[in-house]
This record gives sequence, structure tokens and C-alpha cells, in this order.
Amino acid sequence: MTRTLAFLGLGAMGRPMAGHLARRTNELGGRTLVWNRTASKAEVHAREFGSQAVLLAEVAGADVIFSCLPTSAEVDGVLAELGEHLRPGTVWVDCTSGHPQAAGRQAAELAARGVSFLDAPVSGGTAGAEAGRLTVMVGGPAEALEGVRPDLAFAGKVVRVGGSGAGFAVKAINNALLAVNLWAAGEGLAALGLGGVDLGAALEVINASSGRSNATENLIGQRVLTREFPATFALGLLAKDAGIAADVVRDARGSAPVLMAVEALYRAAAHLIGPDEDHTAALQLVERMNAVELR
Amino acid sequence: MTRTLAFLGLGAMGRPMAGHLARRTNELGGRTLVWNRTASKAEVHAREFGSQAVLLAEVAGADVIFSCLPTSAEVDGVLAELGEHLRPGTVWVDCTSGHPQAAGRQAAELAARGVSFLDAPVSGGTAGAEAGRLTVMVGGPAEALEGVRPDLAFAGKVVRVGGSGAGFAVKAINNALLAVNLWAAGEGLAALGLGGVDLGAALEVINASSGRSNATENLIGQRVLTREFPATFALGLLAKDAGIAADVVRDARGSAPVLMAVEALYRAAAHLIGPDEDHTAALQLVERMNAVELR
Amino acid sequence: MTRTLAFLGLGAMGRPMAGHLARRTNELGGRTLVWNRTASKAEVHAREFGSQAVLLAEVAGADVIFSCLPTSAEVDGVLAELGEHLRPGTVWVDCTSGHPQAAGRQAAELAARGVSFLDAPVSGGTAGAEAGRLTVMVGGPAEALEGVRPDLAFAGKVVRVGGSGAGFAVKAINNALLAVNLWAAGEGLAALGLGGVDLGAALEVINASSGRSNATENLIGQRVLTREFPATFALGLLAKDAGIAADVVRDARGSAPVLMAVEALYRAAAHLIGPDEDHTAALQLVERMNAVELR
Amino acid sequence: MTRTLAFLGLGAMGRPMAGHLARRTNELGGRTLVWNRTASKAEVHAREFGSQAVLLAEVAGADVIFSCLPTSAEVDGVLAELGEHLRPGTVWVDCTSGHPQAAGRQAAELAARGVSFLDAPVSGGTAGAEAGRLTVMVGGPAEALEGVRPDLAFAGKVVRVGGSGAGFAVKAINNALLAVNLWAAGEGLAALGLGGVDLGAALEVINASSGRSNATENLIGQRVLTREFPATFALGLLAKDAGIAADVVRDARGSAPVLMAVEALYRAAAHLIGPDEDHTAALQLVERMNAVELR
Repeated sequence: MTRTLAFLGLGAMGRPMAGHLARRTNELGGRTLVWNRTASKAEVHAREFGSQAVLLAEVAGADVIFSCLPTSAEVDGVLAELGEHLRPGTVWVDCTSGHPQAAGRQAAELAARGVSFLDAPVSGGTAGAEAGRLTVMVGGPAEALEGVRPDLAFAGKVVRVGGSGAGFAVKAINNALLAVNLWAAGEGLAALGLGGVDLGAALEVINASSGRSNATENLIGQRVLTREFPATFALGLLAKDAGIAADVVRDARGSAPVLMAVEALYRAAAHLIGPDEDHTAALQLVERMNAVELR
Repeated sequence: MTRTLAFLGLGAMGRPMAGHLARRTNELGGRTLVWNRTASKAEVHAREFGSQAVLLAEVAGADVIFSCLPTSAEVDGVLAELGEHLRPGTVWVDCTSGHPQAAGRQAAELAARGVSFLDAPVSGGTAGAEAGRLTVMVGGPAEALEGVRPDLAFAGKVVRVGGSGAGFAVKAINNALLAVNLWAAGEGLAALGLGGVDLGAALEVINASSGRSNATENLIGQRVLTREFPATFALGLLAKDAGIAADVVRDARGSAPVLMAVEALYRAAAHLIGPDEDHTAALQLVERMNAVELR
Repeated sequence: MTRTLAFLGLGAMGRPMAGHLARRTNELGGRTLVWNRTASKAEVHAREFGSQAVLLAEVAGADVIFSCLPTSAEVDGVLAELGEHLRPGTVWVDCTSGHPQAAGRQAAELAARGVSFLDAPVSGGTAGAEAGRLTVMVGGPAEALEGVRPDLAFAGKVVRVGGSGAGFAVKAINNALLAVNLWAAGEGLAALGLGGVDLGAALEVINASSGRSNATENLIGQRVLTREFPATFALGLLAKDAGIAADVVRDARGSAPVLMAVEALYRAAAHLIGPDEDHTAALQLVERMNAVELR
Repeated sequence: MTRTLAFLGLGAMGRPMAGHLARRTNELGGRTLVWNRTASKAEVHAREFGSQAVLLAEVAGADVIFSCLPTSAEVDGVLAELGEHLRPGTVWVDCTSGHPQAAGRQAAELAARGVSFLDAPVSGGTAGAEAGRLTVMVGGPAEALEGVRPDLAFAGKVVRVGGSGAGFAVKAINNALLAVNLWAAGEGLAALGLGGVDLGAALEVINASSGRSNATENLIGQRVLTREFPATFALGLLAKDAGIAADVVRDARGSAPVLMAVEALYRAAAHLIGPDEDHTAALQLVERMNAVELR
């Protein structure tokens, strides 16, 4: 039985993810339909990866529909457009860094049409997407996940973390931790820099010590101390994710003073530094707050 | 030319560190003198590692004197006792997680006697000490470090980060980052737990994603979710280190809202949970704040 | 033209508020209907103030319906029960410390039945309610407010702050400021107390200086330093209000690190100290965090 | 017995304070010597208030020496210059917003010369200084205070709060509370403003409600909503005072997450907005963080 997959949203993450799907389905005799709001991107994708560019309504015939859009609002948009075209038995896998509340609503609406919804955000960045080594955190029915697990050609690791919305919640908390770890490292390095310490040496030591994190190991040395701040993951999107984490905390009636304060600081950074800058440029606000440059 | 080393302070870290020194010097035909406030610990060390238990005054004859004590105050204590016994040309290597201000003062006092002082705190925990793979971050004169570099048998990595006090400053900031990363992960997991997410699965995902840190990879799974909280590094000492980091920030006239708030929370945790508990037990305060258990 | 008023919710605030309405309407030849979930409270009120205890459905005939309930959820409850009984032309004045999002929804639902909704929370505590000197902050249509302004017999000051929900938003922010000012004063006094300063003298000075606030002037001396913590306004309710303020911030996409962190601390205090304690008992968490008593 | 008073530092606060001393001493047949680093200011003062402009060394003959300088560092400077000229029996009243640690040291040095030292910072701003209605918070020996109490012509209220340094500690905490109350009000108003609430009306309501503070009653309406930000008390000095409060907390080994975070934000504001702006201009950083103007 060959499979037809569809992929909506060919951005920095979605393009290589859909590419992995296309390679795999082509090997297996199936096919991968791709759609993007700007249609020319889908046509380029088809030429590059052997996928098939289609109109939105045409994806309704796929066995599995993947989406990878900026926020849950855009997912609501395509759901509204597709609406009646969707067929029972389809599984919708939303790889957007979406909102748990949206997942609950979307899952219920789709269930009414016999469509299963999995919130399945990914982590690993554009490098992980290119390599097909993304971590996928999944919320929703276990049986729906098992049905599509062989299709997740872009994944290095797939973990079901709970019911509908749990995937989005874990992604939001993960990104909030990224935000905290990055910001705190910036504060610490700023103080050391003001005190005349060699920041490259300090970072080398921290990366061999207990204070290390993905932020110190893979971001600050490469993006901040080099002053490059390459824009692969936008500051505005990380601020958005930290905001979803804040909603997760508030919906759970939790007490998280550090996550909440850091969310506020990233929102401020998005205003003061610019939402389209790389997320590591949040440390430019730390620099301004300390009147020092991290280099 | 054979070397005589001395080591002061045979606690959980100092005991294996001095053990590595003794093995190395014995191989090379030198010797390692050991001293501890409770003398019986030194005698046990001598039997176990082939070191030589001595009175405090006797260490003054060593080429290099290492110290590894709870705080800079205890280092001041042994310096005061040794005082006039110290000889010009000696190098003092203080592996205590000390205070940068103390380092400046101690270095100046010892320099007046012709003794070089290196602040050389270590990271890696008891496991790293046992394995002889500690990271050593050094502040002080480069030539003094070069003279003792071959003696650092307990080190996996040695990095000079600046002048006198810089080693202590980097260690304090490193430990403050550990404190932040650990606390924030606790807040995030508490919210997820309140929302019914499987915390083991969530942690597995985070450890394969951008929010990972040493705290999530090596502490929370092993010490918190297991409810074991094995006491290898005391909460009170991490709170003390976070306090030194706060002093580093304030002395540099830095702005570090997150580091400062987290320092306050660890001080509170030391009061509410207990200073002698393992540092990961700080998350028991997060649990009380959220009325949820992390398991 | 005589007026019939109705009042729902005879708690610590509602009882005296409805009492003022009853006195005024009785003087003018009108009447005040009162209802409470526990009916006996309404009967006691009728005997004490000359109001008239009624069944819930009977309030639908009033010209103005006031409500003063714990949260917007209880208001939703009575709205659902009253539903079809409500008559066009009625004005609903909700004095609950409610949620701006609820106000928007409730106002829209009632507008569909020709009923005007004003969110009209009050400030001034039980003392202000007894004295009929409450401050009322009103959101909703200006003309609806003008129509009921003469009925607000419990008010010392009435200010329209904006459209529907604005009254609740301002109340939430006001209470969040109370929470911040109270907590910060507790932190400051704890540090002074640890340092051996006479806290009564310190408070006297602060109350004559620039750091003073309603919290230092009217709460800490009377409720905390006396160790009385009389339960007039519950800690759990102030934590709830701080949470509404956090929602106001998040819905506005604002950056408020201090308000958000303090909200988290009050939620923790509600867990650790108890939601039914007086709101000033939040400082008992500050005391535990500092291992000092404020006296 | 006539008295000779001396006053060092004729800034915005010192000028009117010394003016009150001069008026009083002239009435009683005594005299007031005044000194300022810029001597012309003293000469102008002498003409305006009937004081007597002198060289620094000449103040040593006074019965009471008052100082009102930017920080304790400047007090150290004049103490070093006066040194041997000081006479036993003199009382030194330091009205600087100084550092408790400096007070301890200065009191000990002066005691060795038979001079009593009182730390006696004031609150009330330039308006209170002009009116002679300042609040004075005094640390140091009670008998020394009693000896000079009649001389405090600029005071409306004088309270001894503890031993040496306690006055400075209380002043620092008071100003930290001012900083917190002001900042939090800015955050709250920013969120309301983003939500379209009339800020003048909101402020009027808050000032009649439980969230009010000196900051909302006397600063935000007059200085922020008017966009005037008149520079009477510099942002850099309030940041300095919040920093002294942070030291008070740390020296007491206290846990004050809110005070510490707010100190960091004011330090950032001093960098980003400018240390010489009025302290209320700290809310311009809140505005930038929220992309909204408070008007």
C-alpha cells in the first residue's frame, strides 16, 4: 500500500522536512504533496526534492497531512480553508510550535470529521531539519502516532509526551528553558566582561563545567562572541514561544517566577532589538543593560 | 629535581584530588604532604594513597601548596596560621570555590612574602575528582601557572581566565548558571506535571532539544525524578556560590536581574529545605511553590 | 419614579454594600432585593437593613442588578440561571473583581438581550464598604453608567476608565500593585530585621518618606508587626487578582517582569501559607525565605 | 551658650537645609559655616541665608558638622582632608544617602578622635528641604542624637532607627521601595495603556485604592503622564541607593528576589536612559520594553 503525504508550509524548517518526506515516499513508490502560501516555493521544492506542488484543496486526499507554520493562527487558517474537504481516517500532524489551547480545539474540531490530530513540534533547528535528525515531541492519541511513526522521515527521535496539547506544551517549555539559559549566560558573561575576564576562556571553562547548556555550547561562542548573530531562528518567535510557556504555567496555575520574568525580558528584547533578528540577539539587550559588549 | 606538594583540606573533593597528586608524585620520586583540620582524615589518606600526613606547619616546606576548603574564610584561617613559615618561591594553588575579593587580598599578602597565589577552583563534582578529569579555571600570574601546570594531576582541562580573582569569578558565574538552569528546569517541569505531562518523557525530549543543560542531562533525571537527592554538593554551598556571583555582578556594576533573583531563591531554599541537602533539593522548594511533586 | 435594585452576593463586601443600597432606596420609596447562594444570609440582611430576600429568579424584575461574587465564574453561574428571565433595559453592575475577558463575553451576551453590563469592581476593603466610601472603577458604556450613577450608594468615588473590561483590568492592576508594594516592603523589612534595625521605627520613617505605600501605611504596622493577620481579604483572592493582572499583561502583549514574578510568588504563598489566610500573611513566606520574623 | 554649626555640601538638598540651620542659629545668636567644593556656591549661600562661607579646614571648630554629599566616597574625601583638625566633642551628622558599611568605618575612625558620628539621611525631596519638613532617619549613639536634636532645623520628623549604619540602611531600603513601587506602577500602566484604558482615570482610581503609593500619588501624574520628568532626583542616584539596599540585603544574608531584580532594572535604566535624568525617567525604559508611551 503506497502512501500519499502532504506538507503545508515550506519555511526554513518545513522545506528540508518535506524534502525528507519526498525522498522517502519516492523510494517507497508513494508521493509527497507540498503547498505553500507563496506557490512558487512549492514549485521550487518539487524540482529540488521530487515532491509535487499542489493547490491547498488537493492536500485533502493525503493519508497524512503535515503542517509547519509560524503559529497556531496560521494552522487555523488552513484548517478553515480545507474544512469540508478533509476525509475521515486522515491524520493531521502539526509540527508548528503551536499553542496547547489551540491543539485542544483543533483536535476536537477534526475529531468531529474523523480526522486525528497530533501536535508534533520539533526541535533541532535548521541543521537538524537538513540532517533529518529532528526531535519530535508528540501530544495526542497513541494509536494515531503509531500509524504515522514510519512516515516521520525527518525525525531522529520521536517521543509521545501526553494527550492533545502536551507536545506543544513541552516544546514551549523547552524553548523557554533555552531562553532562560541563554539570557542567564549573557548576564554572567556581561559581569565577567565588565570585570576584565577573557570571555572566550570563560566560555571554554563553562562548557567543560556544571553551568554548561546548549546555549553556552552551541550558540554563544558561534553567534554572540563572533558578533555574527546569523538569523536562523527569529527573536520574535522565541519570545512567542516563551509566551506560550507562560500560558502553560498560568493554565496549570503554576508558580514560575524565573520563566515569567524571562518571558517579559524577551518580549522587551523583541521590541528593543527587533523581532526579526536572530534569537541570540536578545543578548544585545543584556549588553545595553550592562553597557558592555560580549566579545 | 623531585617535587614536594602539599594539600590542605581532604573533603569530598579534596580527598580524591590529593590522591591523584600522591600517585603522580610517588611515581616521579617526589611526595605529597596532606593536612586536614581533623587529623585522622589525613592519616587515612596516607594509608590509602601513599601520601604523608603532616602538621599544618610542616606544609610550609612544599614547592606547591594546594588548598581546597569550604570558603575563602577557611583559607584565611590557614594562611594566618602558616604565616611566617611560608618560604619565597612557593606557589599556593587555592582550589576552594572562593571569593574574588579574597583572592586579591590573599595574593597581595602572599606576594609580600615572595609566594605566588593562584585562584584555581575546579568543576566536575566528585565524579570528576575521582576520575582526575576536573576542569580548573585559573586566575593569577601566567608564569606561576606554567610552573605548576605539570603538578595538576587531578585536571582534565586547565584554562587561565585572567588575573587574580578571575578564576573564582568564573567559577561563581558557572555555578550561578547551574543554579539558574536547574531552577528554571524545575519550574518548567512543575508546570508540565501540573498539566498531566509525563515528566520522564518530557525530560528525554528536552535533553534531545535546545533547552537542554547539564542540569537537565545529568541532575534532574538521576537525582530529582528518582527522589534520591544524593548529597554530593550541598545546597548551602551552591547558595553561597550564587551569592559570590551576585557579588561579582555588583562589584562590576552589572545588571543581572535573573542571576540576582535566582540567588535569592536559592538562599530561600537553603532556609526552607536545608543547607546540607543536595543542591538539587532546591527543586523541593519549586515543588512546594507549585504544590506538585516532580516524579 | 421609584427604583427597584437587586444585589447578588452578600459576602464580607456585598453585605454592607447592599445595606447602603437598601437604606437609600427605602428613603426614596423604592426597594432593594437581595439574594445569596445561602438563603439565610439574605433573610438576615433583610431584617438588618430593610432589604427584601428573594429567590434568584425574582431579581430579574429589578431596574439594576448588582453582583458581588468571588470570581467571574460565579457570575457566569447566576447569569446562566437567570438567562431568559432578564428584561431589556436592565443594567447589570458587576462589582466582582472579575476577569476582563469574562466582561467582554458577558457584556456581549447580555447586550443580545437588551441588558447593559458594567464591570464595576470596588476598592476600599470592608472598612470602605461599611462606610459607603468605596472607590468604583467602571468599564462599559458611558450612558449605562450615567443611568445608574445615582444608585451607587456605597461609593465614595466613581470613575469610568474605559470600555467593557477596563474596570476589571484596572482593579486587577491595582491589586497587583498592592501585592508588589506589600511584598517588597516585606523583603526590605526582613533585611533590616536581620541587620538588627528596629522595625517599628523603620516603618514609621518609611511612612514619612518616599517609599511609603498603602501597604506600609495601613497594613504592615496593623497586621504584620502585630502578628495578628486578621483575615479580611484572603491571600488566595489576592493571588487570583494578581493572576488576572498577569492575564491583562499577556493579553496586551506587555512586558512586566516585576508584576509577573510577584504573581508567581503570591501563588506560591497561597500554596505554602494557605489561601484562606489574610493577604498580608504572604509576608510569612518572606519570613520563611529569610528565616526572620517581622515584629 | 551659642552654637556654631557647619554644613558641607550645598547641592539641591544641602542648600535649603543649610539655609534652615542659618536662620535658626542667627535667631539664637550662633552661626552657621558653609562649605562647598565649588566655593562660589558657599558665597551665594552666605548672601542669601546669612551663613558664613569658609574654607574646609575652618569647619573643624564647629560644635556640629553636617555633611550632605552625593555618596559616602565624597564624605571619605572631606574626612581625609579635615583629619587632624577635628576636635574631640564634635558631633558629625552625615545626611548623605550613604553606605552602612562606610558608616561603621567612619564612626570608628572618628570615635578614635573623640568625634561622634551619626548617619542621618533625609527623605522628602527638594520640596521637603525647602519647607524644613524633612524626615531624618538616624543611626548611631542615642546620646549623640539627643545632643544635636535641637539643631536639626530642617527636620519635620526625626527617628533613631538603630546603631551606626542603621540610618543609611533604612534610607536605602526606603528608596528601594520607592524604586519598586514606581517601576511596578509603570509596568501596570503600560499594560493598561496597551489595552486602551485611559491612564489618567486609571491613576485617579489607583490613588483612591489599595494599590496607591507615594509613587502613584506624587510622581507619576505630575512627572510621567505630563512627559515633564523634571530632574530633581537623578536616576543614577536612585540606582545607587537601590544598589546600597542590595548590599544591605546581601550583608544580612537576606532573600529579596524583587528588590534585587528591580535594582538590576534601575541600573539598566541608568545605562539606557541616562543617569542624570529624573528618577521617574526609569519608566521610559518600561515604555521601551512595552513599545507604548505613558500619557
